[in-house]
Amino acid sequence: ILLRIKPATRTLWLLVLVSLPVCISVCRASSPQEDSAMENIVTEKKAEESHRQDSADLLIFILLLTLTILTIWLFKHRRFRFLHETGLAMIYGLIVGVILRYGIHVPRDVSNITLNCQVNASPATLLVNVSGKFYEYTLKGEINANEVNDVQDNEMLRKVTFDPEVFFNILLPPIIFHAGYSLKRRHFFRNMGSILAYAFLGTVISCFIIGLLMYGCVTLMKQVGQLGGDFFFTDCLFFGAIVSATDPVTVLAIFNELQVDVDLYALLFGESVLNDAVAVVLSSSIVAYQPEGDNSHTFEVMALLKSFGIFLGVFSGSFALGVATGIVTALISFFLRDFQLLETALFFLMSWSTFLLAEACGFTGVVAVLFCGITQAHYTYNNLSPESQDRTKQLFELLNFLAENFIFSYMGLTLFTFQNHVFNPMFIVGAFVALFIGRAANIYPLSFLLNLGRRNKIRSNFQHMMMFAGLRGAMTFALSIRDTATYARQMMFSTTLLVVFFTVWICGGGTTQMLSCQRIRVGVDSDQDNSVMLSVFVQISVGEGSERRSTKQESAWLFRIWYNFDHNYLKPILTHSGPPLTATLPPCCGPLARFLTSPQAFENECQLKDDDSDLILRDGDISLTYGDITVSTDASGAHTSGGLAFAGASTSDDLDRELAYGDHELVMRGTRLVLPMDDSEPSFTEPHHRMRM
Amino acid sequence: ILLRIKPATRTLWLLVLVSLPVCISVCRASSPQEDSAMENIVTEKKAEESHRQDSADLLIFILLLTLTILTIWLFKHRRFRFLHETGLAMIYGLIVGVILRYGIHVPRDVSNITLNCQVNASPATLLVNVSGKFYEYTLKGEINANEVNDVQDNEMLRKVTFDPEVFFNILLPPIIFHAGYSLKRRHFFRNMGSILAYAFLGTVISCFIIGLLMYGCVTLMKQVGQLGGDFFFTDCLFFGAIVSATDPVTVLAIFNELQVDVDLYALLFGESVLNDAVAVVLSSSIVAYQPEGDNSHTFEVMALLKSFGIFLGVFSGSFALGVATGIVTALISFFLRDFQLLETALFFLMSWSTFLLAEACGFTGVVAVLFCGITQAHYTYNNLSPESQDRTKQLFELLNFLAENFIFSYMGLTLFTFQNHVFNPMFIVGAFVALFIGRAANIYPLSFLLNLGRRNKIRSNFQHMMMFAGLRGAMTFALSIRDTATYARQMMFSTTLLVVFFTVWICGGGTTQMLSCQRIRVGVDSDQDNSVMLSVFVQISVGEGSERRSTKQESAWLFRIWYNFDHNYLKPILTHSGPPLTATLPPCCGPLARFLTSPQAFENECQLKDDDSDLILRDGDISLTYGDITVSTDASGAHTSGGLAFAGASTSDDLDRELAYGDHELVMRGTRLVLPMDDSEPSFTEPHHRMRM
Repeated sequence: ILLRIKPATRTLWLLVLVSLPVCISVCRASSPQEDSAMENIVTEKKAEESHRQDSADLLIFILLLTLTILTIWLFKHRRFRFLHETGLAMIYGLIVGVILRYGIHVPRDVSNITLNCQVNASPATLLVNVSGKFYEYTLKGEINANEVNDVQDNEMLRKVTFDPEVFFNILLPPIIFHAGYSLKRRHFFRNMGSILAYAFLGTVISCFIIGLLMYGCVTLMKQVGQLGGDFFFTDCLFFGAIVSATDPVTVLAIFNELQVDVDLYALLFGESVLNDAVAVVLSSSIVAYQPEGDNSHTFEVMALLKSFGIFLGVFSGSFALGVATGIVTALISFFLRDFQLLETALFFLMSWSTFLLAEACGFTGVVAVLFCGITQAHYTYNNLSPESQDRTKQLFELLNFLAENFIFSYMGLTLFTFQNHVFNPMFIVGAFVALFIGRAANIYPLSFLLNLGRRNKIRSNFQHMMMFAGLRGAMTFALSIRDTATYARQMMFSTTLLVVFFTVWICGGGTTQMLSCQRIRVGVDSDQDNSVMLSVFVQISVGEGSERRSTKQESAWLFRIWYNFDHNYLKPILTHSGPPLTATLPPCCGPLARFLTSPQAFENECQLKDDDSDLILRDGDISLTYGDITVSTDASGAHTSGGLAFAGASTSDDLDRELAYGDHELVMRGTRLVLPMDDSEPSFTEPHHRMRM
Repeated sequence: ILLRIKPATRTLWLLVLVSLPVCISVCRASSPQEDSAMENIVTEKKAEESHRQDSADLLIFILLLTLTILTIWLFKHRRFRFLHETGLAMIYGLIVGVILRYGIHVPRDVSNITLNCQVNASPATLLVNVSGKFYEYTLKGEINANEVNDVQDNEMLRKVTFDPEVFFNILLPPIIFHAGYSLKRRHFFRNMGSILAYAFLGTVISCFIIGLLMYGCVTLMKQVGQLGGDFFFTDCLFFGAIVSATDPVTVLAIFNELQVDVDLYALLFGESVLNDAVAVVLSSSIVAYQPEGDNSHTFEVMALLKSFGIFLGVFSGSFALGVATGIVTALISFFLRDFQLLETALFFLMSWSTFLLAEACGFTGVVAVLFCGITQAHYTYNNLSPESQDRTKQLFELLNFLAENFIFSYMGLTLFTFQNHVFNPMFIVGAFVALFIGRAANIYPLSFLLNLGRRNKIRSNFQHMMMFAGLRGAMTFALSIRDTATYARQMMFSTTLLVVFFTVWICGGGTTQMLSCQRIRVGVDSDQDNSVMLSVFVQISVGEGSERRSTKQESAWLFRIWYNFDHNYLKPILTHSGPPLTATLPPCCGPLARFLTSPQAFENECQLKDDDSDLILRDGDISLTYGDITVSTDASGAHTSGGLAFAGASTSDDLDRELAYGDHELVMRGTRLVLPMDDSEPSFTEPHHRMRM
């Protein structure tokens, strides 16, 4: 790789700053025609050089990613688990960053002239009249005044710096969409209440705790004289918001590999997916906090209310938009079977248009895309042909992989190539302490409260693990690099980088140690709900009936209502799965129901086709409700009858009991035949291979 | 769709041209702090508005594509073949273009001020000092002097105009790569000589014929006074080069659907893929033709030789680079099995880096990508796991579909939104005539010459069909929109657009009529080589032996040498398929051969694993050569022994004879069991579906 970087630097292209002698009298000796021809050639050459440089820059990243992939392959091959691909990408990025920063010195170009164009505004587009010809320039950004002089030295570093909006508009959306699209696990829905609590309440708590602590830290710094610029309370809150977005991708990868407890996995994954959305909207509402009047950093109730309104408005708007597009896609794909390419293309385009539509409407595209992904997984996925299901999964898996590793390697690179780092030891130490306290204030109190209501308690070792798995990643980085104009933001950005490095390497690398230290069981049979099956066994042997009532009361009533509505009405309308509407709607709506029900749904009546009936495992309860309406609606066939037998199956705290049953493996195998298949990640287990070339 | 465009225009953002009073005395009343804060807010708002506008613009295209997909689905459903998806995309683009152009009028912004910054050069980057703050601007392009005044009205139209380089650097590469990656059909290799002749010789002939005719036309126009600007001979040649790139995607889609003769398909597809590469390099060499001295448009031998050198250098450089990256990928993927995601990601990244590397080195990325695709298909594909084979195929299929339809819908749009159209009736008529003559001068003489050498003659109805199928498409458009600065280029661009529209709609739409008119057989059993199998039958009944010698002489000796080398050495080294090296290398190289041979290759000895042994169908010849080296090398097992029986099987001109054998269907079925599977497009025939959610 080091050898390959050479051409990138060889073809290095220097910024030519042309002097503008203010009030120059145009002095040109040669004929205009020839001159313009020469000028055209010069311009073309410049553009070509610039294009070559851009290609070389991008090539660096592509080769970095390639190198990461090769090393990862080696690691996977040797079952080396201390370093995740993202951590590795960062290391390679760091190395390249060091080389670019210290290894390469560009000789000064003598022909450079500096231009100082005195204008009284900075429009986004500038028209420049060069000897009668008009050239259009677009605003790239502001440059620090003290950097203008050594712009030349930094030019190469600035060249490998991407527009921060690239992260938000190109790299993050596929990552977030993929997270939403792969969220469709029954364990997520089973733990939905807790996940929502951690993601919403927890993120807000964490944001404000960190914000307050940092404000204390900053005030202290000001008094000690360590602060080199303004740092307002809103800045502290903003910092709290951006570092509250957790991204335990490293931890989850290890969880997946070691088959750690599924509930813990669901809690962590669900929290990290949703708190990204909360953090984005929260940070943008904090930025929008603008009290009127002269001093723009005082407390003002109206401005606070406005910010709160923005939070609610943007979040619900993005949510609604994402869900709406998902539903539209589901309806379209309802009809669009048989043409896989068209299906996949439509799926991709509709998901992308969610992002664009949200951005164009002033909502947050990333949030919209997340909820669009969840909706697509819930409805559209069922309408796709099996091939398209694979295709879409694989497509977004690939995009996610590439975007994630790109971001992490860029993070490593930018630690050395970013121009305006402000490393303040006191701020950094303060931030780490605040982060720790903020995470603790999120996990432990909420877990305590949730445990009051949960039957399947979140045990203390799970809580410690969740505390430990509060890694920061792509979203935190993207939020912090978005605006690095002020001193406060620069300090935040530098600190954020260190936080990401520390958590990904140390916490990510120590996951296996932490798991064994907390004595968290590994090797749980993938996503198959071991504990439920065990508890079924327990129930059957202990005798059912007595516990049914209590379970029914404990499962969230709101969620049960939603599930019924979704299963009886939305699923049949939007997808080919689920029971026919004629069975679920009251008899008076007969014609309407027949009109809306797809032919496939009637076929479903006989056989188990509803892939989502495993969404909730305690569906003994649901089949009861469902059974009230009509007797013949038992769409999930064998499954529901199995579910009835399971009624009241308590989902956990049997984890310790399981060892008492030596023959549980046998029961599990027996039960698995009844339970529907799992929605694990596509397990590419050798589809019958027809295409040979 | 029409309703949805509204927000795009509502959020319209106008270019603010700020006056630069040269030598202004900076007059600012308010405090600098507050002022800069206000300025920041204004800048942020502007940036946000601009971002929203960009999102809305992109959304238009995404919705256009969505609409195209839905309509195409309808067409496919109803088996409506007169309009291909690309033609449809153009129509939708046209409609939206008309609306944008005539339907929407932006009210004039009164606050606009015009800036005239007198600078004596147009650097790619401009630093502007706005009241002490430095802003960086990047060059976007030149604006016509007469447009500066009504820049405002056109702003919206210019907003939906993409940077022409987007086509070359983002949209074309996946299209071209996909073409190369799906070129791996044995019929392509069987007709390789003819395809190369059409693509190289034909394109050069066509380019020069069209160039000369257009020069005549332009000279005439000048005398009549119809010409409004300069139009040099190099411009004419350039026009000839860009319109020589054929793109019969519409025709090929119909061929595929109707199962037209495979040789005709291979000839057309192969020609269109390769002549794109030739046209790109040819046009860039013509642009590079720069005689020294004052008059830059005279004839000069040195400049001509230099251009010729550039053509050879760039083409061979791009070719070498593409092949090299393909081989590197093959070598890497040799080891990288078992991790499908990593495999696919690596494949994608390596293919992309080919493009970037070529661009960074000054070669042509598109050409490199084409040959990279062909190499990947030939070697890397065999090393991929079956899942990755599917994944990569599907990925590039999707990218190709999206990019192609995007380009065509943009073409439709740009007919109305492009600002500098120059429609000159005389030039347009001349261009159509020249195109017709140029295509004829390519097809008919070359076919005559090729028929002298070909056993399987290209019959006259095939020639007419090839003549008819000379559609122009994405490549021609991308080449012509790349530079629209001068009058000549603008006229070329407008004319090219009309040429694309005409050929895609008229020629594309008339394909089925033309097929029946030329009495070209349809419904040939897909890619199964019907004619060969029939001829085998013929040979067997007629008796073999007598014809073997003549066939051996007729098949291209150069190609035979290459095939032997490839099959015996390259394939075993680079892929898991092919015979083991120990068998093909001379005994003295034993240890080296054992070192280089993969374990799989030894397994291959027993069973047929070489998916490419069907590359050449007359491999009776090859197995003879091959048999000379060692007796036990018969890697392709049953197939080769079948092939020996087929020796001398003349591949065609039995097409008419076939009807004489009523029972040929039976023979075909019998033979097909022996022949290896075909490399048709991935036929997604229900892989065993394991993943359910």
